Amino acid sequence: MSCTAAVIDLSLAAVAFEQWMQDAGNRFEDAADRVLPQPDVVPQRLHGAMRYAVLDGGKRVRPLLVYAAGEVTHADGDALDRAALAVEFVHAYSLVHDDMPCMDDDVLRRGKPTVHVEYDEATAMLAGDALQAEAFKVIADGVLPAPQTAALMRELAHASSTSGMCGGQAIDLDAVGTTPTIAELERMHRMKTGALLKAAVLMGALSGRVSALTECTREALAQYGEAIGLAFQVVDDLLDVESSTAELGKTAGKDARQSKPTYVSLLGAQAARAHSLRLRAQALQAVADLGDGALRLRELADFIVCRKR
Amino acid sequence: MSCTAAVIDLSLAAVAFEQWMQDAGNRFEDAADRVLPQPDVVPQRLHGAMRYAVLDGGKRVRPLLVYAAGEVTHADGDALDRAALAVEFVHAYSLVHDDMPCMDDDVLRRGKPTVHVEYDEATAMLAGDALQAEAFKVIADGVLPAPQTAALMRELAHASSTSGMCGGQAIDLDAVGTTPTIAELERMHRMKTGALLKAAVLMGALSGRVSALTECTREALAQYGEAIGLAFQVVDDLLDVESSTAELGKTAGKDARQSKPTYVSLLGAQAARAHSLRLRAQALQAVADLGDGALRLRELADFIVCRKR
Repeated sequence: MSCTAAVIDLSLAAVAFEQWMQDAGNRFEDAADRVLPQPDVVPQRLHGAMRYAVLDGGKRVRPLLVYAAGEVTHADGDALDRAALAVEFVHAYSLVHDDMPCMDDDVLRRGKPTVHVEYDEATAMLAGDALQAEAFKVIADGVLPAPQTAALMRELAHASSTSGMCGGQAIDLDAVGTTPTIAELERMHRMKTGALLKAAVLMGALSGRVSALTECTREALAQYGEAIGLAFQVVDDLLDVESSTAELGKTAGKDARQSKPTYVSLLGAQAARAHSLRLRAQALQAVADLGDGALRLRELADFIVCRKR
Repeated sequence: MSCTAAVIDLSLAAVAFEQWMQDAGNRFEDAADRVLPQPDVVPQRLHGAMRYAVLDGGKRVRPLLVYAAGEVTHADGDALDRAALAVEFVHAYSLVHDDMPCMDDDVLRRGKPTVHVEYDEATAMLAGDALQAEAFKVIADGVLPAPQTAALMRELAHASSTSGMCGGQAIDLDAVGTTPTIAELERMHRMKTGALLKAAVLMGALSGRVSALTECTREALAQYGEAIGLAFQVVDDLLDVESSTAELGKTAGKDARQSKPTYVSLLGAQAARAHSLRLRAQALQAVADLGDGALRLRELADFIVCRKR
């Protein structure tokens, strides 16, 4: 199935998926609004900035992956909300810090001024720091049995660490102006974006029934997460070239201006698109044996590869 | 006992305490050197900055509190190392971020150039972010039973969050140039410094035998942690006024220059010193019934209040 076919396919299944995405998105917003510190509680400015960084914005790809993977193991709503919040808090903190003047120095994110522009740099740094702590707190405060709680926190810590997101970000900084091999670029993205997307899938599954998460299912989900994590980044690189700032809600054309090596700069747009479709196929293949429980994961694979922003 | 008496008391007990501190400090340095990502592993610059931020510096008050509290519950060495590393990683990340130009803009820490001066701002921000993740990772990767692992991470997450360290830091930012009441100042310090010091005590105890940590013992340790956490800050304020930059290894006289309200600016030096001794007495009183297991905690209370840097 091509992307165009997927987008215009208004079959009942597609409508149901749209509805599921909307419901999951609303559920996430409600949970975030409830769990994030209220803006009238001291320190108000910090709480305001944390809420500004998280609420009303973004595609919520990571929370959607959590909710979708939770269907594989029949996870409970509260546990899934917590895993979704944790992953999105880490993602949001990384965006706040990445946008700061000492990093990407960007002024627009999710169609709004970035946090350090709307507030100030000190508040933005603290809001990012506090969101990372909040990510671990929201899981620690859940009611899952301790072995699951500990496993969720372990997954999140590894994905956020120097062997995951932070490490990938550092490699990305070092790569500006260089021409890495495709293998090197892929390694960087596996860490920078892929690790947290994969963690979202595994954490969704870890939030459910332990008996439903066999070693085999876990391995299938890990493979799905790895493939979809890379596919997400290839599409991100394509969109940076092909879309406008207004469509993206963040500054377009930034990679080329910053001389950042991307899938597009290394492969060309056509080969990058083909690569994204290959990764989508790998993701679908990985969960092919998981039956109906993996329906939303399959649909999300199409959504991630065919998205326009 | 006055501070002077404590410092010049070279009884056998004092010598034994000095030796214990040195052994615990060496043990911590070895563990940190082993657990922190190696500087020759990609991304080298980030790993170098993380190690620079943690190794060879500081009084290690938080690790010492972890090791001392672990004696109350007969905790195992590896578990204590992990709790000590976690607390110190969070402390170290907060210093790296606090020193950055958008916060305190300081160039000297632990007698060395600050991380953003030695490396650069982007690396400093990432190193701080990665150290926070590493803090949770080092506990998650331990071998304690899951309920203890989850409890440790919960304690750390709360102490680091907006209701703890990050929140206190934000209140501190907002307080520059104002004259808070003593109660407001105390609240700020309970969050900014006290929460993590208290967490160090509780995490040390949580790393040991569950049966040894009765509700009563836990409450005693929490009270000790609260009192010693505040005492630490009162002494910090005094040292900022009374010591030289060379003695402190960080810029002295900074609070007054930044118009920061402190115990000294609100109470005067003499009353602040008296307050620190009252808090020391409270700390000692809290653990009076814990017997020999709390010996190091008692000695640390004296060390924290009588320290010269």
